[in-house]
Amino acid sequence: MRILTGVQPSGKLHLGNYFSAIHKILNYQEKADLLLFIANLHAITTFSSKENLKENTISAALDLLALGVNPEKTIFWVQSEIPEVTELSWYLSGSITVSQLQLAHSFKDKVAKGFTPGAGLFTYPILMAADILLFSSEKVPVGKDQKQHLEITRDIAERFNAQFGNILTIPEPDIDESTATIPGVDGAKMSKSYKNTIDLFGTEKEIKKAVMSIVSDSKEIAEPKNPDESVIFQIHKLFLNEKETSELRNRYLAGGVGYGDLKKSLLETVMDHFAPFRKKREDLQNDLGYVNSVLNSGKEKAKSIAEKKIKEVRDALGIYPFSIK
Amino acid sequence: MRILTGVQPSGKLHLGNYFSAIHKILNYQEKADLLLFIANLHAITTFSSKENLKENTISAALDLLALGVNPEKTIFWVQSEIPEVTELSWYLSGSITVSQLQLAHSFKDKVAKGFTPGAGLFTYPILMAADILLFSSEKVPVGKDQKQHLEITRDIAERFNAQFGNILTIPEPDIDESTATIPGVDGAKMSKSYKNTIDLFGTEKEIKKAVMSIVSDSKEIAEPKNPDESVIFQIHKLFLNEKETSELRNRYLAGGVGYGDLKKSLLETVMDHFAPFRKKREDLQNDLGYVNSVLNSGKEKAKSIAEKKIKEVRDALGIYPFSIK
Repeated sequence: MRILTGVQPSGKLHLGNYFSAIHKILNYQEKADLLLFIANLHAITTFSSKENLKENTISAALDLLALGVNPEKTIFWVQSEIPEVTELSWYLSGSITVSQLQLAHSFKDKVAKGFTPGAGLFTYPILMAADILLFSSEKVPVGKDQKQHLEITRDIAERFNAQFGNILTIPEPDIDESTATIPGVDGAKMSKSYKNTIDLFGTEKEIKKAVMSIVSDSKEIAEPKNPDESVIFQIHKLFLNEKETSELRNRYLAGGVGYGDLKKSLLETVMDHFAPFRKKREDLQNDLGYVNSVLNSGKEKAKSIAEKKIKEVRDALGIYPFSIK
Repeated sequence: MRILTGVQPSGKLHLGNYFSAIHKILNYQEKADLLLFIANLHAITTFSSKENLKENTISAALDLLALGVNPEKTIFWVQSEIPEVTELSWYLSGSITVSQLQLAHSFKDKVAKGFTPGAGLFTYPILMAADILLFSSEKVPVGKDQKQHLEITRDIAERFNAQFGNILTIPEPDIDESTATIPGVDGAKMSKSYKNTIDLFGTEKEIKKAVMSIVSDSKEIAEPKNPDESVIFQIHKLFLNEKETSELRNRYLAGGVGYGDLKKSLLETVMDHFAPFRKKREDLQNDLGYVNSVLNSGKEKAKSIAEKKIKEVRDALGIYPFSIK
């Protein structure tokens, strides 16, 4: 089973990313053939600066490797290293209409918010389709908001196959309905745009500040506390097994512990949990030559898959060069 | 002065193409650095079949080489051999809005004609911009109907440069207002879609049939004929110098020659004029290995220009790989 997933190089990872996307990635790594890329071409649609994109690209590589992406098991590369995706995008653009693209949520949402949409944002679902189809991905993990994009990919592939022969693998979505929303420090969904994150690789001071700022009610130290209503507890339990969760729950219910101490417990858990990852990330940061060599060897593996597929597509279309009788 | 032009591989060339586009190309070849490519990627937007595209691609190469494109002077390649254009297209798609693309004539015309526009047709001006900008073309010959597309290219380049630095050369249009319309056998503009063409490399029988079908009035042999109202004369004079034109004019005015004979004269002129080109084309057809080697060496030259520019663009955007401090 070949599974492909792309990670946008969009800056610092937080606990929300860790307990959803990253956990999934590590899970796939164990049970499937995982293809994982840093989507720096897609990042062009939200470009801020050259320095930013460079920093975020490397940062994404460090994060993923530190958290457990294993280049022995997973093909891991940076999207721009396989420019065949942009070539495939062009070929696929004949297999989708303008009206279909106008219906894409990603586009409609931006227009509704008053943005002047660039052509890149508009054609983004075609590049996403090319990412998936170039590597014959059988399964693609999608959040609920990305379901429609995968539908577009399937449509494109079906239309292309109908016209040119059975060349592209139709991918199945892997929609994880069960993923609970991870709350941020204000109780809303943890998200960079809400500025309510606890960052994985922030400094200890930053993480402490974030944890200590988690909202709570005004119960006195002596009072029993309701874990099910506590954001601190909701975040804390993500790190715990069943037994530990039950112990922590009792500590809340028993009373006699203030929120300050409960936050300190959480902080300790967070720091302990990520200590080895933080160490690994520092080591990698000090050995960028190794990181580059990992990405380079991932590129080679991805390239050999991509080249085979793009050749099939070119042949089906009659694209030069070809052997002439 | 670097001039770039693309030729769509759209089938048989006719006299109308010869006296406009081909003449221009040969002219540029003598006085500028000409970059000439067979636009097979663009042909995807009007795809009919794989065999067709293959045949038309090779046919375009044979036509152009037979008619005088000199690979010693001109960089001549097939578009798909430099897939960097599709990569550049993606980068450029951030520098143009959806609304601008909606205003493109090529798009509006198809919609007005009731076509369901594909995304490829919609984004075609971006690929055209990439063709031009990848090779830092200073001048681009454009027909009146293509003027707007070059404006779009200039807009994209200016916006890109404003955001990322002065990287792309802003091309100037070379609009030849003087080009007279070449009439077809029915007197309307010669065009494949009107089925009124005289094909350059048709069989002698086909060419004869086309020439003999040119419209004329019903003047008797003895009557004087008005050359300025004769389609036969309008086509014939394209092949003649001033003195020859004046002689032919007198032959029309004097009377005593029927349209049948005037057509036979024209046919002779056509066959004589193209005889060496027809011979050359046959020779090339019998030596496709040579044709491929010409296209291959053109590709190498084009590639070295393209690779330099795409690297500049990648650097300006912060696209991986880059050297990390």
